[in-house]
Amino acid sequence: MDTTDKSAASPSIASVGEFGLIDRMKRLLGTPETPDVVRGVGDDAAVVRIGGGRVHVVTTDGMIEDEHFDRAFMPMEYLGFKAMSVNVSDIVAMNACPRFAVIALGLPANTTIEAVDALYRGFRNAADAYGVTVVGGDTTKSRLLTLALTIIGEATEDEIVYRDGARPGDALCVTGNVGASKAGLRVLLRERDRLHAEGNSYHVDLDSIQYVVQRHLTPVARLQVIRDWKACGVRPSALVDISDGLASEIHHVCRSSGCGAVIHAASLPIARETRRVADQFSDDPHDYAFFGGEDYELVFTVARDDLDKLDPVSFTVLGEVTAGAGVVQVTPSGSLEPLDAGGWQHFA
Amino acid sequence: MDTTDKSAASPSIASVGEFGLIDRMKRLLGTPETPDVVRGVGDDAAVVRIGGGRVHVVTTDGMIEDEHFDRAFMPMEYLGFKAMSVNVSDIVAMNACPRFAVIALGLPANTTIEAVDALYRGFRNAADAYGVTVVGGDTTKSRLLTLALTIIGEATEDEIVYRDGARPGDALCVTGNVGASKAGLRVLLRERDRLHAEGNSYHVDLDSIQYVVQRHLTPVARLQVIRDWKACGVRPSALVDISDGLASEIHHVCRSSGCGAVIHAASLPIARETRRVADQFSDDPHDYAFFGGEDYELVFTVARDDLDKLDPVSFTVLGEVTAGAGVVQVTPSGSLEPLDAGGWQHFA
Repeated sequence: MDTTDKSAASPSIASVGEFGLIDRMKRLLGTPETPDVVRGVGDDAAVVRIGGGRVHVVTTDGMIEDEHFDRAFMPMEYLGFKAMSVNVSDIVAMNACPRFAVIALGLPANTTIEAVDALYRGFRNAADAYGVTVVGGDTTKSRLLTLALTIIGEATEDEIVYRDGARPGDALCVTGNVGASKAGLRVLLRERDRLHAEGNSYHVDLDSIQYVVQRHLTPVARLQVIRDWKACGVRPSALVDISDGLASEIHHVCRSSGCGAVIHAASLPIARETRRVADQFSDDPHDYAFFGGEDYELVFTVARDDLDKLDPVSFTVLGEVTAGAGVVQVTPSGSLEPLDAGGWQHFA
Repeated sequence: MDTTDKSAASPSIASVGEFGLIDRMKRLLGTPETPDVVRGVGDDAAVVRIGGGRVHVVTTDGMIEDEHFDRAFMPMEYLGFKAMSVNVSDIVAMNACPRFAVIALGLPANTTIEAVDALYRGFRNAADAYGVTVVGGDTTKSRLLTLALTIIGEATEDEIVYRDGARPGDALCVTGNVGASKAGLRVLLRERDRLHAEGNSYHVDLDSIQYVVQRHLTPVARLQVIRDWKACGVRPSALVDISDGLASEIHHVCRSSGCGAVIHAASLPIARETRRVADQFSDDPHDYAFFGGEDYELVFTVARDDLDKLDPVSFTVLGEVTAGAGVVQVTPSGSLEPLDAGGWQHFA
């Protein structure tokens, strides 16, 4: 009866990768037939009509112990906050407002009540911060700590922004700064290794690296940015959040929109703390910025005419959308190079 | 930085159990403040207003390897079908129709493409059977195979039936038959043990036990039943599905509704195949029926006047709702006994 244990006969999913898997899923599940589905599998979130010109926007994201976090250096309260932020970010990346959440938890039986309370406090803090109501959930035993959150957002149908709307001539922009989450992960892994090597006598000094660690452990979804856009009457032409990496998201937007882009690496917004960590490791901070991932900033394209309406401190223009395909970067030294997609690949 | 590894200082969740955990969660998350939430944590699914007198009904349920299924005797196609059925059943148990699904998957890296395809086929078959559209998902690497589905259903606000609406004098009923899933699990575990003991030369003969095995591996949510109710203009006063066990669901309905019930054990609808399996194991088939769980039948209470409008082959009257608290059973021998809640307890 076993259909799974045939590794000799059938190749494993590692050979097709995450995106190959998503393509397969789309094919096997077929095209939605109901007219109420405006957008199904493929963008940051799905869009379904609820009547009166309004839509619900739905996203789900799982976080699994030892893949997405290490319980040893991820306080449970932060984990709850981050799980909510990651999902809210997908709703925000559709230019919609998060409304409701359901939470499916798998908890090891020896999890302490204290730890579960901390996890729920994290959910609660994030829910309050984003105006989300947790309306339901499911809690079950599991050998690994697992979280799967689903968030439902709301918008009018014409407010929704997809990743495929970029037009040649649009400015290509990013909110906040990038690469900080990767820098935070780097130092956390270093401190963990030192702690393992030197034992409990080792004192982890997080103060000097607080900013990047915080960006990694408790990222904040850019809900305020889309509220500001709405207030000033601007609607981007394309929009995604940075979960896998800035470069791979730019590639996504360009491929989906049937265009390309020129990016100026010198304009990458990288925090001073991020540069300092990169220096410590003799890493190139541009690599953190382009390929690090988990920044949960927004990448967006917008008509040049709208740029002046936006608050300039909230974003950086990285370059321009081009009619020709492909993404090229102007390196800090001034040469033109193709920009690698890079980015995090599950199963790779 | 570790807040989880304090088992010596703080009691584990095993000491409060699943329901204690849900109560804690409700308290920590607070009461929903938005008027759009008609019902939050606590029923089979949450209910949120979407305008025009209509509601979205939302539920999430996780299934985790080695807790909910054993990959060795759960074909992946069945697993996909069951995961969808379990969630659709929660929507049906609110008297709503399932519409959209999102799926969060955790897959071991050595999972074969063949296995993933089979899993998606299972989702697709169930989606087609229930009229559900899969609109999104998330796939990530995991050491354990994990599934968390979220289903969104739809109804008008006055169609929704909660578990707390039972009134003294109502008939207490159940659809289909009960205990078959438990019987199926019993024989599957027996066959697995024999296979382990005797090796691959052992031939698993599933034909004679096909019905109960099928009820365990591919339960079907009772969507047709609630469609029939709608067609004949009947709305039950209370409604739940049997995931944990018939007895515990009856207790839930009674406690939530502030009443009690008298149940006639002799009227329990138990399939011939279920009785045969119970005989083989020298088990009492009433135990399977009352405490087995995972039948995904519907337990409902309904005004006596409405009973005649319902198709009599689709359900069985088990007893009556009483004004006094507590659930008693009239045993087959005619004596009166309190009915144990029993049922599946995670973390117990």
